[in-house]
Amino acid sequence: MKKIAVGILGATGVVGQDYLQLLSDHPWFTVTFLAASDASSGKSLREATLNRWNQSEKTLQQFAEMPISQLDAIESAKRACSFVFSALSSEAAQLYEESYAAAGLPVISNASYHRMAKDVPLLIAEVNPEQTAIIPVQQKNRNWTRGFIVAKPNCSLQSYMIPLFPLHAHFTLKHLIVTTMQALSGAGYPGLSSLDILDNVIPYIPQEEEKSEVEPLKIFGTIEGHEISLANGITISAHCNRVPVRDGHLACVSASFEKKPTREEAIDLIRRFRGVPQQLNLPSAPKIPIVYQEENNRPQPRLDRNRGGGMAVTMGRLRPCPVLDLRFVALSHNTLRGAAGGGILNAELLLRQGYLEES
Amino acid sequence: MKKIAVGILGATGVVGQDYLQLLSDHPWFTVTFLAASDASSGKSLREATLNRWNQSEKTLQQFAEMPISQLDAIESAKRACSFVFSALSSEAAQLYEESYAAAGLPVISNASYHRMAKDVPLLIAEVNPEQTAIIPVQQKNRNWTRGFIVAKPNCSLQSYMIPLFPLHAHFTLKHLIVTTMQALSGAGYPGLSSLDILDNVIPYIPQEEEKSEVEPLKIFGTIEGHEISLANGITISAHCNRVPVRDGHLACVSASFEKKPTREEAIDLIRRFRGVPQQLNLPSAPKIPIVYQEENNRPQPRLDRNRGGGMAVTMGRLRPCPVLDLRFVALSHNTLRGAAGGGILNAELLLRQGYLEES
Amino acid sequence: MKKIAVGILGATGVVGQDYLQLLSDHPWFTVTFLAASDASSGKSLREATLNRWNQSEKTLQQFAEMPISQLDAIESAKRACSFVFSALSSEAAQLYEESYAAAGLPVISNASYHRMAKDVPLLIAEVNPEQTAIIPVQQKNRNWTRGFIVAKPNCSLQSYMIPLFPLHAHFTLKHLIVTTMQALSGAGYPGLSSLDILDNVIPYIPQEEEKSEVEPLKIFGTIEGHEISLANGITISAHCNRVPVRDGHLACVSASFEKKPTREEAIDLIRRFRGVPQQLNLPSAPKIPIVYQEENNRPQPRLDRNRGGGMAVTMGRLRPCPVLDLRFVALSHNTLRGAAGGGILNAELLLRQGYLEES
Amino acid sequence: MKKIAVGILGATGVVGQDYLQLLSDHPWFTVTFLAASDASSGKSLREATLNRWNQSEKTLQQFAEMPISQLDAIESAKRACSFVFSALSSEAAQLYEESYAAAGLPVISNASYHRMAKDVPLLIAEVNPEQTAIIPVQQKNRNWTRGFIVAKPNCSLQSYMIPLFPLHAHFTLKHLIVTTMQALSGAGYPGLSSLDILDNVIPYIPQEEEKSEVEPLKIFGTIEGHEISLANGITISAHCNRVPVRDGHLACVSASFEKKPTREEAIDLIRRFRGVPQQLNLPSAPKIPIVYQEENNRPQPRLDRNRGGGMAVTMGRLRPCPVLDLRFVALSHNTLRGAAGGGILNAELLLRQGYLEES
Repeated sequence: MKKIAVGILGATGVVGQDYLQLLSDHPWFTVTFLAASDASSGKSLREATLNRWNQSEKTLQQFAEMPISQLDAIESAKRACSFVFSALSSEAAQLYEESYAAAGLPVISNASYHRMAKDVPLLIAEVNPEQTAIIPVQQKNRNWTRGFIVAKPNCSLQSYMIPLFPLHAHFTLKHLIVTTMQALSGAGYPGLSSLDILDNVIPYIPQEEEKSEVEPLKIFGTIEGHEISLANGITISAHCNRVPVRDGHLACVSASFEKKPTREEAIDLIRRFRGVPQQLNLPSAPKIPIVYQEENNRPQPRLDRNRGGGMAVTMGRLRPCPVLDLRFVALSHNTLRGAAGGGILNAELLLRQGYLEES
Repeated sequence: MKKIAVGILGATGVVGQDYLQLLSDHPWFTVTFLAASDASSGKSLREATLNRWNQSEKTLQQFAEMPISQLDAIESAKRACSFVFSALSSEAAQLYEESYAAAGLPVISNASYHRMAKDVPLLIAEVNPEQTAIIPVQQKNRNWTRGFIVAKPNCSLQSYMIPLFPLHAHFTLKHLIVTTMQALSGAGYPGLSSLDILDNVIPYIPQEEEKSEVEPLKIFGTIEGHEISLANGITISAHCNRVPVRDGHLACVSASFEKKPTREEAIDLIRRFRGVPQQLNLPSAPKIPIVYQEENNRPQPRLDRNRGGGMAVTMGRLRPCPVLDLRFVALSHNTLRGAAGGGILNAELLLRQGYLEES
Repeated sequence: MKKIAVGILGATGVVGQDYLQLLSDHPWFTVTFLAASDASSGKSLREATLNRWNQSEKTLQQFAEMPISQLDAIESAKRACSFVFSALSSEAAQLYEESYAAAGLPVISNASYHRMAKDVPLLIAEVNPEQTAIIPVQQKNRNWTRGFIVAKPNCSLQSYMIPLFPLHAHFTLKHLIVTTMQALSGAGYPGLSSLDILDNVIPYIPQEEEKSEVEPLKIFGTIEGHEISLANGITISAHCNRVPVRDGHLACVSASFEKKPTREEAIDLIRRFRGVPQQLNLPSAPKIPIVYQEENNRPQPRLDRNRGGGMAVTMGRLRPCPVLDLRFVALSHNTLRGAAGGGILNAELLLRQGYLEES
Repeated sequence: MKKIAVGILGATGVVGQDYLQLLSDHPWFTVTFLAASDASSGKSLREATLNRWNQSEKTLQQFAEMPISQLDAIESAKRACSFVFSALSSEAAQLYEESYAAAGLPVISNASYHRMAKDVPLLIAEVNPEQTAIIPVQQKNRNWTRGFIVAKPNCSLQSYMIPLFPLHAHFTLKHLIVTTMQALSGAGYPGLSSLDILDNVIPYIPQEEEKSEVEPLKIFGTIEGHEISLANGITISAHCNRVPVRDGHLACVSASFEKKPTREEAIDLIRRFRGVPQQLNLPSAPKIPIVYQEENNRPQPRLDRNRGGGMAVTMGRLRPCPVLDLRFVALSHNTLRGAAGGGILNAELLLRQGYLEES
């Protein structure tokens, strides 16, 4: 199979570098186009990431001399690649993602800007792969032919939405109270000052709770007519905290359901769960999407964040909740599953679903 | 006023040292008796705390040559002091606290062993000062004359039980879901290995959730006949985590009430709250027991743990909870308010209430 | 005694805030003028330090409504105060410090820009108080009447230059190899990204080694004719590292001398050392300028940085060096002794020496 | 080639687990015997490492059911394996290593006990592979036939002894002043209390400086007659510090030589250096033993400790030293190159040199 040429928007930032690392030896995709903001465009990747390259030397050498284009170099992008991954900020996504899609280049986005648009899938490949069926509607709405936008949710949601999905499917989620302890890398680079977070926890992350309380409703939503409707009857309360941990967002979750599951039913469902990515054997899909651990003191960010190549969710301590029905602890790697890895898995799914062209 | 002679059981451990520090210039109490386990007894305080003295040099010098007695040297204790603070482990508390009380020495305890006994007050001086009225019952039950035992709750509860108290008094607490992020010093010394907690969170603290789900019921309980009855109609779910922070237990709280308060009513009650310790102007009582902060990103352990000399609770982010009624963030210093400082405040209250003799 | 009105240039930064904290109840000085860069000028201190105030609430409230002037508001400064502390960057110091001095306002500076000028004292009050005698020369050179500039050295030097001083005075320093482990606060705010320093050491601090190898020569230099000459015959090698510690610069030092001291002679000199600030009983002078600790594992930043109100140097492990003559470990608080506290001590010395006017 | 059966003494500790991880898919060696102290013997590896397994799940599953023998089960060891790796404490090494060697089992040791014995090689495979020629002398001295003991040096030395070796070979080392910043894992598990090292540096590691000042003399020593003589004319001063870093010992080094090298000569030698392990293409040998980095701020523990699979030394900042001749910064992974990985590399060398039997 000939590899498909792909581009990266926002290639020099933390998430962009993650894309480069994960795509450096991807079996289906090959990186042929990089774009970034004015501070980086016109430079080579090596120059543009000097003193802030976070990935392996080998990956840097592979891409070192690739030129960084301007974000509006859409004609160049069209000549160079079949679709683009977007690691743009919300502001840049607003300015550029639609232009790429309009020009015929599908945009697999990590940005928050289009997440809640009613004709844009908000995709976790294991959870709502059927939501991509809205793409033709989106193209029609916007008079786009080949191009479209697919969003992925906020990085902190993956840790608990994937475990909640098989439970929701059987028992119907009603109430969710989640307290997250989120890693430093979730704030990008330079992100938090070391003076602010050494020996400290910060009980607030701007906009994080708002996103965490609405995005799940769309992820569990359904296509009704020409739009994705939010799930009904679910209320969510999120407390989001920043902790001095490099990678891995941890969540303490209490949840209630229409039909109350027992602990054993819930663990059994979790353990047996395999999603479409596992069934399709997608290259970035972890074999076991949710690793359930019996030990009392797990998951832990440092020990468990890299399970399944950073793509598996780790879960533990599932037990009855005295207030709601069940409670548990879950963890996912915020920059792998929660960002670039999740985006790549989405692209792999879209390819197999026929939304991306094979050559 | 002549100072009252006091003893410290478990004087060489972390909490014992905190007692020495806080009592080094206390206006009412003077330390005249120290006891500890066999590893320390027979030594001077200086020898017994070599390489693990955590408090000021000045305090060490003040007490350096005091001998450490054995824990069963109760006759010596009787000659030396009027009552004792107990910083013993639960196991040692089981062995020794009753003997001291039986010998006529009141025991102001930090240990967990007697917390749930129906004739032992579980005391937070601002919250349930009336619970000391059970002391005569306790003395009668156990045939003790002068001695008695007063317990204080688990260190992590203070952060949220003090803010919940004025709300409970007006609106009647029903459901409570609390996720704590607890400091390293809560595990004692040496406590957690640096290898386990650097760049990590551990989502489990042995026995912590169990204590956190039952002790509040007794704190909000009432004396009925010859025992303290647990509060009815309250359910609690606690998720307890260890984070790489030195001091200060932080709690994310969601709560519902019989009568739902507005955010403004709740903040107003919190701000106006003053307890009996404030009314009595007890030496260790913070002037403002609950410091409410308007900033979005507060309280933070490093910035706020020492408010009110480590005796005030800091609270912020009080806002509606989409699942329960209200949610907020609260913080208290686990080794000051949550341990030795809380014990001393209890003793000050008991003295003013007449349960401890003045000379 | 009427307090002397003082100003602070760069009042809103980390060092500027330290000045405000330390001067909030200073017995001799009262703050009457604040200036800072365009980003802050025109605002009140509260507005200008929103979300980045690092000092106590009490101090913030004391100064909250003081207006921040522009740095070129020199006429306002003249009306408001008798001299200024400069917490400016090197670039801003180059632009403004001479103008203040020319206008008749002495400048007690923390900046690096004028440190090596031959007519500017590079002052550590305990070490070279006689170097202020160059001030009349400086004024004559520059046609200034009342104004002058006094610099203080780089923050990392204090930890070892103060202990080396009594040794140098008796045995004459020849060679010095020093490896520093410097705290995060030395880089200002926001300074280092938490992603760069968690679980890490960075073995490089821009310009730090260069400053560390030349400033000591001037500190140990002598006034010869119309300039301060650098000390002869001393060679210095500095390795400077950044470590994940909040405050306190630690130094491992090996040194040789013209005349080799024994360990006992050296410790005796260190212990008996008192400088001019101690003799004059200056308000910010620690009673014991160098605290020597016998324990093998001291000094440690967290345990010892606040000795003497953050103004004392702590030293330990003085022992023979197999390569040079002696080696030891020393620590000083980089933002107190090493920055604002050192500047205030310099001003106190200058006042007693008659270089600053009393009213 | 049939794999050689090997045993691990001290298999359940941190270094023992590293051996299991590194040997889990080794091309030459297969683990067939595990022994440990009484606390672990009689259990399976899974039971013995419950809650303290630090390596991959896959490795745990591979060895989970292997029984842990007692350390004195030497007859079992003889039946099970051809030689043993020793990850014992110094005390246990004193008790058991000679017995294994006497029984005919070569001991490749990480322990300190035999390091300075005159007939025991103190081996860094790249530096002094010729020192194994003392083995026949050792066997004769001790009346051993097949068995012998080979030691490896203290974990912190590798970072600077490997870079110094090519320089010493050409220019002859005279003076060495080294300040180390050593990782937490160097202290074993549980090692340092989190309360002691969070926000701190400890400027002392028991016995570390003593070892660091004498072991290099033996490593650079020569076989003279029936013993390894220490190198003459080298003096060493070591300052050893513990820093809050998980893995990777960093060293700041100043050195002088009989013949002074230029910076360029030194870097050229370093870059071109390949040792016997590289020439023999040993499985655990990094292709490039010393990775020299041009960036000013490298090496850094978090970024560079895993180079060459944790077996390469990373070096940077080589520049003239104003006091001695040259100075530089070097880093090696303390538990890989500095412990188990170094031991395995030594065994690979001994096998190729003919000291270990092939089957």
